[in-house]
Amino acid sequence: MAKTKAKVGVVGYGIIGKRVADAVAAQSDMKLVGVADIISDVRLRIAQERNYPIYCSVPDFEPGMREAGYEIVGYLEDMIKEIDIVVDCTPTGVPRQNLPLYRVGNVKVIVQGGEKHDLTNRSFSTFGNYARHLGVDMTRLVSCNTTALTRIVATVTQEYGVSDVFVALARRASDPSRTNRGPINAIAPVLGVSHHGPDLLTVMPQLKDKVYSLAIAGSWTLSHVHMLKVTLDTTPSKEEVVKLFKGTPRILIEPGKQGLYDSAQLVEYFRDLGRPRYDRPEVFIWQETLSMDGRSNLYLIYDVHMESIPIPENVDAIRAMLEMETDVMKCVEQTDKALNIYKKGAYSGSLYGGSVVKKESKALV
Amino acid sequence: MAKTKAKVGVVGYGIIGKRVADAVAAQSDMKLVGVADIISDVRLRIAQERNYPIYCSVPDFEPGMREAGYEIVGYLEDMIKEIDIVVDCTPTGVPRQNLPLYRVGNVKVIVQGGEKHDLTNRSFSTFGNYARHLGVDMTRLVSCNTTALTRIVATVTQEYGVSDVFVALARRASDPSRTNRGPINAIAPVLGVSHHGPDLLTVMPQLKDKVYSLAIAGSWTLSHVHMLKVTLDTTPSKEEVVKLFKGTPRILIEPGKQGLYDSAQLVEYFRDLGRPRYDRPEVFIWQETLSMDGRSNLYLIYDVHMESIPIPENVDAIRAMLEMETDVMKCVEQTDKALNIYKKGAYSGSLYGGSVVKKESKALV
Amino acid sequence: MAKTKAKVGVVGYGIIGKRVADAVAAQSDMKLVGVADIISDVRLRIAQERNYPIYCSVPDFEPGMREAGYEIVGYLEDMIKEIDIVVDCTPTGVPRQNLPLYRVGNVKVIVQGGEKHDLTNRSFSTFGNYARHLGVDMTRLVSCNTTALTRIVATVTQEYGVSDVFVALARRASDPSRTNRGPINAIAPVLGVSHHGPDLLTVMPQLKDKVYSLAIAGSWTLSHVHMLKVTLDTTPSKEEVVKLFKGTPRILIEPGKQGLYDSAQLVEYFRDLGRPRYDRPEVFIWQETLSMDGRSNLYLIYDVHMESIPIPENVDAIRAMLEMETDVMKCVEQTDKALNIYKKGAYSGSLYGGSVVKKESKALV
Amino acid sequence: MAKTKAKVGVVGYGIIGKRVADAVAAQSDMKLVGVADIISDVRLRIAQERNYPIYCSVPDFEPGMREAGYEIVGYLEDMIKEIDIVVDCTPTGVPRQNLPLYRVGNVKVIVQGGEKHDLTNRSFSTFGNYARHLGVDMTRLVSCNTTALTRIVATVTQEYGVSDVFVALARRASDPSRTNRGPINAIAPVLGVSHHGPDLLTVMPQLKDKVYSLAIAGSWTLSHVHMLKVTLDTTPSKEEVVKLFKGTPRILIEPGKQGLYDSAQLVEYFRDLGRPRYDRPEVFIWQETLSMDGRSNLYLIYDVHMESIPIPENVDAIRAMLEMETDVMKCVEQTDKALNIYKKGAYSGSLYGGSVVKKESKALV
Repeated sequence: MAKTKAKVGVVGYGIIGKRVADAVAAQSDMKLVGVADIISDVRLRIAQERNYPIYCSVPDFEPGMREAGYEIVGYLEDMIKEIDIVVDCTPTGVPRQNLPLYRVGNVKVIVQGGEKHDLTNRSFSTFGNYARHLGVDMTRLVSCNTTALTRIVATVTQEYGVSDVFVALARRASDPSRTNRGPINAIAPVLGVSHHGPDLLTVMPQLKDKVYSLAIAGSWTLSHVHMLKVTLDTTPSKEEVVKLFKGTPRILIEPGKQGLYDSAQLVEYFRDLGRPRYDRPEVFIWQETLSMDGRSNLYLIYDVHMESIPIPENVDAIRAMLEMETDVMKCVEQTDKALNIYKKGAYSGSLYGGSVVKKESKALV
Repeated sequence: MAKTKAKVGVVGYGIIGKRVADAVAAQSDMKLVGVADIISDVRLRIAQERNYPIYCSVPDFEPGMREAGYEIVGYLEDMIKEIDIVVDCTPTGVPRQNLPLYRVGNVKVIVQGGEKHDLTNRSFSTFGNYARHLGVDMTRLVSCNTTALTRIVATVTQEYGVSDVFVALARRASDPSRTNRGPINAIAPVLGVSHHGPDLLTVMPQLKDKVYSLAIAGSWTLSHVHMLKVTLDTTPSKEEVVKLFKGTPRILIEPGKQGLYDSAQLVEYFRDLGRPRYDRPEVFIWQETLSMDGRSNLYLIYDVHMESIPIPENVDAIRAMLEMETDVMKCVEQTDKALNIYKKGAYSGSLYGGSVVKKESKALV
Repeated sequence: MAKTKAKVGVVGYGIIGKRVADAVAAQSDMKLVGVADIISDVRLRIAQERNYPIYCSVPDFEPGMREAGYEIVGYLEDMIKEIDIVVDCTPTGVPRQNLPLYRVGNVKVIVQGGEKHDLTNRSFSTFGNYARHLGVDMTRLVSCNTTALTRIVATVTQEYGVSDVFVALARRASDPSRTNRGPINAIAPVLGVSHHGPDLLTVMPQLKDKVYSLAIAGSWTLSHVHMLKVTLDTTPSKEEVVKLFKGTPRILIEPGKQGLYDSAQLVEYFRDLGRPRYDRPEVFIWQETLSMDGRSNLYLIYDVHMESIPIPENVDAIRAMLEMETDVMKCVEQTDKALNIYKKGAYSGSLYGGSVVKKESKALV
Repeated sequence: MAKTKAKVGVVGYGIIGKRVADAVAAQSDMKLVGVADIISDVRLRIAQERNYPIYCSVPDFEPGMREAGYEIVGYLEDMIKEIDIVVDCTPTGVPRQNLPLYRVGNVKVIVQGGEKHDLTNRSFSTFGNYARHLGVDMTRLVSCNTTALTRIVATVTQEYGVSDVFVALARRASDPSRTNRGPINAIAPVLGVSHHGPDLLTVMPQLKDKVYSLAIAGSWTLSHVHMLKVTLDTTPSKEEVVKLFKGTPRILIEPGKQGLYDSAQLVEYFRDLGRPRYDRPEVFIWQETLSMDGRSNLYLIYDVHMESIPIPENVDAIRAMLEMETDVMKCVEQTDKALNIYKKGAYSGSLYGGSVVKKESKALV
């Protein structure tokens, strides 16, 4: 393992992979060794412009990549020899095929939320189970929706205790640039329980039998939106819950009435802010929607920018697996600073994902 | 009051009004005296073609209506003299201005769900409180969303008892033909509790303190979709609940996997069926989404065709208010037959909206 | 060949096929022998409900179709034995595979506009070349866009002569019920000349070197819209051109300002009219967009309902190929009456598609 | 007039105004004195964060702005005293009301393309008529669509001569953040000639009687797309025209087949590039769509990013009106460098907008 900087390789330079590459390159304790893919379109121009070494994942595609003008420094196998850990961001199903290569190369592995939990038998969420990932060899980042859900649920679980979680998700049809996908003017229900409830349990197994989720998908591309009902063990006031979230990293809570009425206006605000790719890796809670009823139920609606939400968690996972930082909150602070999503005053407490390690046996997950 | 047929006038010939007019004209015990409006566009061609007498609601608009080639048989005041009951389907706020006219004319009045409950101090839903409307002079139909929600909740309340209702609504941005409205590619939360929970209480006050609703609206036009969690007092099996809904009028429950995966495919099916305007006044439950967890919670997702859902209830309300039929189920059967939404074997039991009158004092609502 | 009624089989019961079946069934001189497909979803319910005999196109799918509750009267080969002509409405590429079957069965064949012209070496458009199809054995209906374009261009060519045609098409992304297709919020250009210009030449070869088309597709589903510039040989007034179109079958020209401002309001109007599936097989010209400049250029914008536009032309093609009617205008009138799109006073003149047969040699097409 | 830096004020801090402010602040020869508005929402946070002095345009709104936490340095009248030139980017109709203030303050004035030409009796486009704006006191930037169209048409006019222009525009329904506007799933034609043809004549009056435009608007928000036919006086090859555009500033021409198939993928590319707000003030031509037919007609399709297209032209207009630079190409180069849209090798020739001043009398425009 690297003494100095962690050597990281990114496989799959798509929606998630290109962001993970930028995020890794921005960390002072990590080195982006390269990105590997088979594409030869304009996306690679960005990698080349940023001087990310480009590896070819499958030799058959090398001629096309070179013809398109991209310098190829080697094959995926070559990259694996140079790295401590690989973040595989390839399309669903491909990571399973790549695993043997990674094992041969003896590198640690992170796959993304499109994969099934049983591929790795372990799933990661900073807020849910960071402490349990110290030193482990392989994990799967939970999906963007579950990453966001875990941030919220772990936060209130730690503070108030939770006896029931029901989330109704409105999923975007596709990422903005995947323009071959519909529907154009329709809503499609997920026919059965959506995977999000079960997925939450992979990182917070303590909530077994307390979680359910329903989901629809429809004709928009900017973000997922969650409508959440959580039954708490105690009865904080609405103001206390707002304050809790205001003091938590990677969660923004602001009134919509100041010109952030919908997801497009959120995008506009982050465009104006100068955020790269208008990314908002923070969960955004519309403050007016948060309420407590008289029966310990907390309600709220929040926005999940699926393209960027799991990026900080990928960085955290690298640090946990390579044991670069054992204190979850210090890790989060370091990641957030490097990604310019630092939230003043939010890193003084503890996170559920850091404390559980003491309470429960490792065998559980 | 009419000895033979109930004489009905419709004010406002828009999305709802034109359907109420057709529905009234289709009832053997009602006579559509006329429709009143101020528009002069192609919508009136349909009224003229169907020989609905056209009244002018505001004299200033009469010349325009005549110029556009429409025969005007009188003013709104004239129509009022000819009718027993008026169904006011004008845009929000207008019914309040029309009320004095109706009082002078001594006609019964139905307004629609865009109006506030306190305009009439009484709201109507066939499934919720039909029996309490026998003979009353004025009411407000609850909104399309609440009409649909009441059908579901009243049905399970009667059968199993209910201790908690949470509904997450995904509202269409606008009706398909109201093309000046957005958003095009965004999701907007309702900033606060949505009105649907409180609105349900106007027709099912027994659920006080047991109901909450959150809502979003977004870039689609075909229907509303509800994701519902209801905590029951008993623990029926999933199959029993499916059977219950299969035997209930105005509720369809079918698998999505047979080619009804989303709201656009539902529309296609009803286009193919030859339904006028592809209307589906029935709530449509995607059967695969219905489930019971181990804690008496029922979950399901259903589709609400906002343009046509409240139409049968408008017809029922006329019958209740004019005391044409005291048995709610007989009324529903009669309405459904005339509207060609008759559901075989669904009219033998009782409806919550018919039985409550015995259990509770009239003073409650 | 049938003495009495033409015996017609429809293969492929999708967007076009189900409409062709209904249209054939509505003709007094035709008999719908059956529809053949491999699907087992709710679409077949409609066929069964309308008593259309259902044939199974590929035996492997028979069990699934029967399991879903549909009565199968035979295989495709069986249907072919019973018919004079087949209208193949299967997805692009499938008709090529079906052709040997049809040849063996010795039936005439119509394929749809998704196929290439060279599959049949002949393409059909009523307005373009009806007379040249009398008695032929096989043809291809031009696409929905070309069918509409031909109606307009043939009409002005016959009346005024034409020296240049440029059409800019805005294509819908997908039919409303094909909800797996995008884009959701984007415009995609056709990269190169769109096929519509060349396709027009397959039915109006006289326009060689005078036609060009560009096209975009985008995030809407209701219709195609064409922006057309045609340079005429003479200089009629705008009013004369409007009058010409007003007297032409299957072309509607009306002001948008009467409440038909956009394609969704058109749909609403046809829903209100009670048209089956809100179909509008007529081209709809927004009258305000039609103008003549001082240089013999005609400009206009029109709406093309892709789902239903080619339906009457399919019926016409059957009549031409089976030589049931040699006079194109009589054929059009008969079709239009049966489809309830009869246009008063529009069938007295001649159509370009009928007269060209005299002017040019058959060898041309 | 300022000896050193031009002192510029921006009125209206919306879609265009906020970009003009940033663009002015980025020029080494200009100073952004401040921005004036009446809003108090999150948009002003950006101005404050960038240290743009904020002025209140209408005193009634001052308390709201202060309450929202924004520091107000003065009223609009105060800002006017400090500046040489004002760029008014307020909503349509407001500039007319502001003009008296500007006259009293004796400042030069630029209004935007939402205003009518007759407000200023002069319209500006760098490519069309820069040279005629040297020293003038007031002008109107043509709209985003016309700015883009002029870049293309002026370029080919200068090189080849032009006898006919027809453009079919597909306009976005609204900017992405103006989420109250539709349509959601429809296409609406402009009922009559669209304003774009006549608007082009305000900056290229030499094309009188040679220009026509039709337009539709629909359910997308990312950009306008133009389908253009231009009849040239000469017959360059397709390759020559491509080369011409490749050597012209503010025009990009690239194959779509390298992953830029549609407007959403263009947006993605500019997001990846790190462009502020993913702006692309350059016209983008899909190279595969450009062709020449045998009759001197040039065809092409291009993308117009309405939010940012007119920004460089606003900067140019300031320089022309304050006579800071008489050579149009030097001005364009300076602007483009400061805005990071510099195009290597594109500034050596001349621009139509610079040369016409010698050929024609000032009286013409």
